[in-house]
Amino acid sequence: MSGEFNLIDKYFAARQSNRDDVQLSLGDDCALLTVPQGYQLAVSTDTVVLGTHFLSDADPADVAYKALMSNISDLAAMGATPAWLSMAISMPEPNEDWLAPFCDSLFALADEHNLQLIGGDTTKGPLTISFTIQGFVPQGKALMRSGAQVGDWIYVSGALGDSHAGLEVILDKSKAEKPFAKHLVRQHFRAQSRIDFAQSLLGIASSCIDISDGLISDIKHILKASRVNAKVHIDKLPVSDELIAFYGNSTQARNTALMSGEEYELCFTIPQKHKAMFDELMAGSDTKAHCIGQIVSRDDIEDTSASFIQFLRNDTPISNEEKASIQQGFDHFN
Amino acid sequence: MSGEFNLIDKYFAARQSNRDDVQLSLGDDCALLTVPQGYQLAVSTDTVVLGTHFLSDADPADVAYKALMSNISDLAAMGATPAWLSMAISMPEPNEDWLAPFCDSLFALADEHNLQLIGGDTTKGPLTISFTIQGFVPQGKALMRSGAQVGDWIYVSGALGDSHAGLEVILDKSKAEKPFAKHLVRQHFRAQSRIDFAQSLLGIASSCIDISDGLISDIKHILKASRVNAKVHIDKLPVSDELIAFYGNSTQARNTALMSGEEYELCFTIPQKHKAMFDELMAGSDTKAHCIGQIVSRDDIEDTSASFIQFLRNDTPISNEEKASIQQGFDHFN
Repeated sequence: MSGEFNLIDKYFAARQSNRDDVQLSLGDDCALLTVPQGYQLAVSTDTVVLGTHFLSDADPADVAYKALMSNISDLAAMGATPAWLSMAISMPEPNEDWLAPFCDSLFALADEHNLQLIGGDTTKGPLTISFTIQGFVPQGKALMRSGAQVGDWIYVSGALGDSHAGLEVILDKSKAEKPFAKHLVRQHFRAQSRIDFAQSLLGIASSCIDISDGLISDIKHILKASRVNAKVHIDKLPVSDELIAFYGNSTQARNTALMSGEEYELCFTIPQKHKAMFDELMAGSDTKAHCIGQIVSRDDIEDTSASFIQFLRNDTPISNEEKASIQQGFDHFN
Repeated sequence: MSGEFNLIDKYFAARQSNRDDVQLSLGDDCALLTVPQGYQLAVSTDTVVLGTHFLSDADPADVAYKALMSNISDLAAMGATPAWLSMAISMPEPNEDWLAPFCDSLFALADEHNLQLIGGDTTKGPLTISFTIQGFVPQGKALMRSGAQVGDWIYVSGALGDSHAGLEVILDKSKAEKPFAKHLVRQHFRAQSRIDFAQSLLGIASSCIDISDGLISDIKHILKASRVNAKVHIDKLPVSDELIAFYGNSTQARNTALMSGEEYELCFTIPQKHKAMFDELMAGSDTKAHCIGQIVSRDDIEDTSASFIQFLRNDTPISNEEKASIQQGFDHFN
């Protein structure tokens, strides 16, 4: 208890929601929970560290929102419904000025998703927050990285690149005067996960991932798990008007869209046989999705090395020079 | 991925066991898991931080063992069976000299308990390890803190105090020459959780807690949750011969036993109606348990303030001076 600063009661115990499937949460050695019949449990862990994932002048409300959204987004990528959250938080000392806005933001977002804090640990140490989120997905229906097949269409939800442009502004204050800089910073801290949209893809999409490492990186995770390659049309990448205005041209906007991480948009594949069902879904959906390419076999394109993406513009493979420049940009991002 | 040092494959992915209830573990956005029918899920999170919970010269194998054992012990306290582990680890840089012995020790202990690593996050940051452990307990049968009733007998398993004496040696090298110093340091790092014994208490004990904060503190957790008080016989506290030899007298050994945390022994209550069943269990058990007192109502002893323990020696309440000295010692420990 001594290590827990007695903050648990004040900031955490009183603020939790009360889900029916939580029989016991804070206040004993473990939480006791019931998973509904016919569902699998989906579990993911994410950590954010001061100095690595956020700066000391970051708004605690933004830190809570972004960290939890990233964790929620992992559930979204599988088509799971959020249920329970465990939080490990280390702080050098109990700083209530920091904790109060952090908790307000955390619980507001958790409540939006009917996500209950079921336990955790509060310790003395450098500022670090680690979430383990749990959710439910109908038995055998989860959207995995490994289901993409040759011929499937590759889609991305929303628009890409805003989050990285926002980060550029945070790291280089001279960019704060560029068009829509403030909007893009907000997109960085408050990118939205596609949790409801992902659930509507259950039974329709063959694979799915959330864009947390950057589109190129994340598509490659699908290709590796599914043992296929892909063709991606750079000119079809969806980017926002604000991003184009920020960079002053769409080429740079789309290059950023290829690599920007922490977007929490979804990249997913739709088999031809589900295409009509998908188009019907999209006709009634508030979320936009754009087809950016197609899954091909490893023999279909000249480079048959593992997890290869062939980039095209105007249906023509890009030049070797541009390929090299994208690779360079990608290495630089990482 | 950039933050994950590509160490996941090398140190974690290849080392996991393969439980039938794990449909997907490392390598996708979430793990996918199935809880057996008729069981509740028990979940607990524990964090250890360099400088707070262990020193920089600590053996990484000891750090892994102690941190995981503490987490396993939370399941033991509920009578749950370990199943799945998520790990968030932050390190300043990928230090393989540290990770290799850490992982060897971690996986050896996890394997002993059929505990599978199902996911986690590896990030750059000050050395911090956070575990979220999950296990199963038969629906409605978990040992909780809130079940103690007036008249129940209070027991502790094993012997108490060794862990704290070991910590004294670690923090004050001059004590390394005292009797059994090395043995007690090992007890500190390698205290054993009573996971099997706890499961044998399901349906017999009315409440249970693991001794992680110190006996006084942990009994008070039971008293608070159960809304009762307790009488505890100090002279009946089980202490090891090694602890008595280390201090040179049994009084100091028992005072340490009252306050020593991180023991992972169990404190539990047995109703009179289950006493015969419990005695039969103990007759066939390798684990020893000692009755140290009894649950009383809040009106039974003069101080009716919340969660009060009356201490006795030779069946006589201890003096006010000794009471004050214990309180002082307890405050000092915390």
